[in-house]
Amino acid sequence: MILLVKTGGAASLPEWQALFAELLPGLEVRWWDDPTVRPEDVAYAFVWAPEPGRLASFPNLRLVISSGAGVDHLLADDRLPAVPIAKMGAPEAVARMREYALATVLFHHRKFHRFIANQRVRRWEEAETTEAANRTVGIMGLGTLGLPAACALREAGFRVRAWARTERALEGIETFAGASALPAFLSSTEILLCLLAATPETTGILNARTFAMLPRGACVINAARGCHVVIPDLLAALESGQLEAATLDVFDVEPLPEDSPVWTHPMIFVTPHVASFPDRAARARFVAEAIRAFEVDGTVLNAFDPRRGY
Amino acid sequence: MILLVKTGGAASLPEWQALFAELLPGLEVRWWDDPTVRPEDVAYAFVWAPEPGRLASFPNLRLVISSGAGVDHLLADDRLPAVPIAKMGAPEAVARMREYALATVLFHHRKFHRFIANQRVRRWEEAETTEAANRTVGIMGLGTLGLPAACALREAGFRVRAWARTERALEGIETFAGASALPAFLSSTEILLCLLAATPETTGILNARTFAMLPRGACVINAARGCHVVIPDLLAALESGQLEAATLDVFDVEPLPEDSPVWTHPMIFVTPHVASFPDRAARARFVAEAIRAFEVDGTVLNAFDPRRGY
Repeated sequence: MILLVKTGGAASLPEWQALFAELLPGLEVRWWDDPTVRPEDVAYAFVWAPEPGRLASFPNLRLVISSGAGVDHLLADDRLPAVPIAKMGAPEAVARMREYALATVLFHHRKFHRFIANQRVRRWEEAETTEAANRTVGIMGLGTLGLPAACALREAGFRVRAWARTERALEGIETFAGASALPAFLSSTEILLCLLAATPETTGILNARTFAMLPRGACVINAARGCHVVIPDLLAALESGQLEAATLDVFDVEPLPEDSPVWTHPMIFVTPHVASFPDRAARARFVAEAIRAFEVDGTVLNAFDPRRGY
Repeated sequence: MILLVKTGGAASLPEWQALFAELLPGLEVRWWDDPTVRPEDVAYAFVWAPEPGRLASFPNLRLVISSGAGVDHLLADDRLPAVPIAKMGAPEAVARMREYALATVLFHHRKFHRFIANQRVRRWEEAETTEAANRTVGIMGLGTLGLPAACALREAGFRVRAWARTERALEGIETFAGASALPAFLSSTEILLCLLAATPETTGILNARTFAMLPRGACVINAARGCHVVIPDLLAALESGQLEAATLDVFDVEPLPEDSPVWTHPMIFVTPHVASFPDRAARARFVAEAIRAFEVDGTVLNAFDPRRGY
């Protein structure tokens, strides 16, 4: 039985093998495109963005483990086999996202984007800022990552509101449900944090129309998927002053291409898809746990639900 | 009875007058160098960095209120009259410093300094980072601002240690007291936050010798006073890799002069003395409270203690 790995680059294979040798001693660990692997021996695949059709070539594949919390990179495969999918749910990924949410919201709350732009031109200019208690942060998405991020921001003293597909009751967090509530949710959101799953409904949800629903001068953080943001609309909203600044962690094409205007925009801060990235040891522990749970009684940890699309 | 104001620039006088008209209706509020003020009418002075000798020219001065939490800008006056001094202690200043401590420590913890430098050259490069629980943050100073900052960082999940002049017992925070404990305190501090008072003992405390006591690759944040950091030593430590990055909020000369090498250093982030800056309404509330308390029974709120020097 073989576990195929495709995440972190082929150079990371020895590290994965060392980690899994401890965690799953019985399992053989090989790289994704190792030509000596017999397709019928592959039982598990731990992958990020596999080439379309490739997973279907393993007749005895039992479980796919997504290397990220989202599965859009798997659903892009039009011949995806009907095997269960476990989505990365390392507890460390949640802790990392809580930190990233707090770090980037505080970054914009305290006008660090403006100080960084000012520093480039050696300009000393105070920026009057308000306290967290007077600042409204809006979270889009209340999933495995969105809910803990919302709670961390509430604990840091911000006024927090959240928008999700279905009704939720959360202490100290004002919630909004469904498309009809989106304008009301956005109307008072000064710092918007997108942590939505990537589905056909949420693709392009951060666009000229929704930016216009935010109060003038709002900041936008996207730590979900590149497809959520319509980049030309973002650039236009920054240009007009409707948005003041943005932090982007995810992009349609990664690494972000050298010629992207995003790199050089003084009011966009780029982080290289690190928001919820746990280290390899933490991800390996989750994979081992998912395989063991599946082998015991077929349980799929943090399972992808095809009806919801995430 | 007149309250003289010297903080925020002369253009801010109408705003101060409007605020104090509500808070202290009986008091006349005038600008610091208004030539029509009779010196003997001045009872209170709310000031930042008054010209030496000027405060001594008011024979009936009863109380000085420092516009900042520190009094070094007053002690620079060699003819400072022997009137009591209340140090700015607006509760909002404490909340602001908690936020700033959290914002800048998370900034360095999540390697934002490196992503910002990478963005300038369009470089996409992940930085492996650890969780807050594995990161040691060291606070220098456990005063009105240092203690709440230390607590906020502990609550955010960091390993927190603190260094102060005298022994303290704090839950969940490892404490170190006095000069002899400084090497032990620094030896495991990965992110150092300076919130010391400016005294002859602490001037220049962040220098080549103390930087060398930190683990290699540490980050330094100074939100206390410019005099704490020996800038040439900081630049040399960044150059050698002993320090990875720094955030500086305070400088010997403010605004930071255009020709300072600090402005253009890719691993120094400059904020314009905003760390604990409450808005004018909050500062006005503190001033009104200090004047009322003094008028009732001579109580000096958040009093300067000449024996300690702060």
